Amino acid sequence: MKRVVIAVDSFKGTMSSIEVGNIIEQGIKSIRRDIETVKIPIADGGEGTVDTFLTAVGGRKVWLKVQDPLFREIEAFYGILPDGKTAVIEMAAASGLSLVEGEENPRLTTTYGTGQLLKDALDKGCQRLIIGIGGSATNDGGIGMAAALGVKFLDEKGGLVSLNGQGLEALRQIDCSGRDQRLDRCEVLVACDVDNPLYGKNGAAYVFSPQKGADAETVEYLDRNLKNYAAVLMTDLGIDAQKIPGSGAAGGLGAGLTAFACGKLKSGIDIILEQVHFDQAVANADLIITGEGKIDGQSLRGKVPVGVAARAVRAGVPVIAVVGNIGDDIDSIYEKGIAAVFSINRAPLPFSESRLRCREDLQATVESLFRFLSALKW
Amino acid sequence: MKRVVIAVDSFKGTMSSIEVGNIIEQGIKSIRRDIETVKIPIADGGEGTVDTFLTAVGGRKVWLKVQDPLFREIEAFYGILPDGKTAVIEMAAASGLSLVEGEENPRLTTTYGTGQLLKDALDKGCQRLIIGIGGSATNDGGIGMAAALGVKFLDEKGGLVSLNGQGLEALRQIDCSGRDQRLDRCEVLVACDVDNPLYGKNGAAYVFSPQKGADAETVEYLDRNLKNYAAVLMTDLGIDAQKIPGSGAAGGLGAGLTAFACGKLKSGIDIILEQVHFDQAVANADLIITGEGKIDGQSLRGKVPVGVAARAVRAGVPVIAVVGNIGDDIDSIYEKGIAAVFSINRAPLPFSESRLRCREDLQATVESLFRFLSALKW
Repeated sequence: MKRVVIAVDSFKGTMSSIEVGNIIEQGIKSIRRDIETVKIPIADGGEGTVDTFLTAVGGRKVWLKVQDPLFREIEAFYGILPDGKTAVIEMAAASGLSLVEGEENPRLTTTYGTGQLLKDALDKGCQRLIIGIGGSATNDGGIGMAAALGVKFLDEKGGLVSLNGQGLEALRQIDCSGRDQRLDRCEVLVACDVDNPLYGKNGAAYVFSPQKGADAETVEYLDRNLKNYAAVLMTDLGIDAQKIPGSGAAGGLGAGLTAFACGKLKSGIDIILEQVHFDQAVANADLIITGEGKIDGQSLRGKVPVGVAARAVRAGVPVIAVVGNIGDDIDSIYEKGIAAVFSINRAPLPFSESRLRCREDLQATVESLFRFLSALKW
Repeated sequence: MKRVVIAVDSFKGTMSSIEVGNIIEQGIKSIRRDIETVKIPIADGGEGTVDTFLTAVGGRKVWLKVQDPLFREIEAFYGILPDGKTAVIEMAAASGLSLVEGEENPRLTTTYGTGQLLKDALDKGCQRLIIGIGGSATNDGGIGMAAALGVKFLDEKGGLVSLNGQGLEALRQIDCSGRDQRLDRCEVLVACDVDNPLYGKNGAAYVFSPQKGADAETVEYLDRNLKNYAAVLMTDLGIDAQKIPGSGAAGGLGAGLTAFACGKLKSGIDIILEQVHFDQAVANADLIITGEGKIDGQSLRGKVPVGVAARAVRAGVPVIAVVGNIGDDIDSIYEKGIAAVFSINRAPLPFSESRLRCREDLQATVESLFRFLSALKW
């Protein structure tokens, strides 16, 4: 019996990883009931990470009240995996851009709610935290998150600074005396696929804050504040955050998690594939299907298909990708071990139209591939 | 060694059958030099039919001066196949819609030039005429064509009527005494994939003349004229043209060729596949690739992929289609024996944009299919 492993990213803007996996499975089964399928939903650290994890390995979802990016009370959530010791947290659930639609303002937004999620996981006995930091609305260097875990951020008069991007301007001193010491007994894995430094032209403010609502003046202002933050981190904690690749991720939350939560920044796809025991799952597979919304030859770092391909090659299992859009210059994709890439576009339609029929198109494309294989007696 | 036969229609509006075949071959060879490819360009009876035939089986192109649809002198052509006895004629070369762009008027247009092509072929000793009648600008019932071969069309005073759609109004009598008798010793095959009658709601005028420039009033006028034409054909020749399926093809040229040139209307794809000895070519093939611009579940009659599939099924060779656009409801395509259908759209783009990159897209799609096969050790 043939065995096909399905491990796809979400198709951004249209379908979640779970949905894509289900549709691909349905496509295979509608043509070949004799093929065994194994679905491994893959999260990318952004919105949907918790659900995807829980689908992949089981566990439960914990709901709680936290502060949203503008300090309003909302219901957020994280996941606890079946071992009862591992929490999966997506910062977007508490501090995500989609929570402040139409009110984006990285001067004001905070990661405080993300810290509340971490604290709750510690309260529930978790000793391993997997944190997805995609989709943030913030540029606070993670001081909101740290404050929720007991760290104090003070101005020159010893007063508390505001826990957001503009609070970093007045920051002069960091007091870790009240920091939650349970963090020292935790393994904190941060899914991070960028290597931007905290400040400067490649830093958090310049590269990421425009998409969070910053104009040119705000970008410069936030960048200055992050630089000040780095200086205080160095003086008070002896940490050179600027030198940590990825410290600029998620508005500097990368730096904050490293400095205050013993966080280790690691490729998100690697964290996830390890957690779901991917190597075991593909050991006896005949084919792996991966995919994502758009594939191209640039910025391959952290891409789900590339992470999947690396392990597929090691296991000697052929891997193909099914995508919504094949960009230019995909030779480098083949070099990473993906045998072939298929697009789901059955008709020449702009995205505004094709997105409405992407589910049928995806299933039909998979069906065609398996019809093809069947015709060739695979 | 694997053997792949490539037998595709043109992608209307973008690529000829020959070009599509070449690109598919290039796609295969760029991934798998070890695969033998056999290209069989397929004509559909419209523009490009002669070139496609000559590419498929060899032969020469004959150029000559004829009258265009508006009786102006132009250079047109037809082909003579290597046997020296078979002519391939596309009516569009002399009487096609593209020759009167901006001046379309089916009251005035004639098939006279098509008759001149036939006559020249007879003069050169051809005894077998294959005539593609797609793309016509005319609605003259083929009287222009017949007049070029010696038939006289007379009004009530015995004067010659004009050889076009409006000439049929005055037609009262047909004089075949001067008809070129070499036609009786000829086999005349007319590639025809519609079964419309000469007149009426499903007839030539109602169904086809609007795309040749007829407004509603003209449609009715032309339809009345064709009905008159049918009556005279019955009275003078004893031919019930209305009962011949396909007599309404090409503005009634179907009727004209049947009545005056001993023409047999036959599925174009069958004529062509026989002529190129398709069954022989696929006997030892491992895979057949067919395709066309748009495939859907409607109006399958005369479709190249369907004709190819019928013979592929007989030969027991799997056949797939590569197309520019997969329409709805293609289950009937699978029922015809096509194993799988792949679209060349790699990105969600409207046709206005995708047409500009269709060549790269086609080649990349074929490459993906053969990368896929290679990964699975085919």
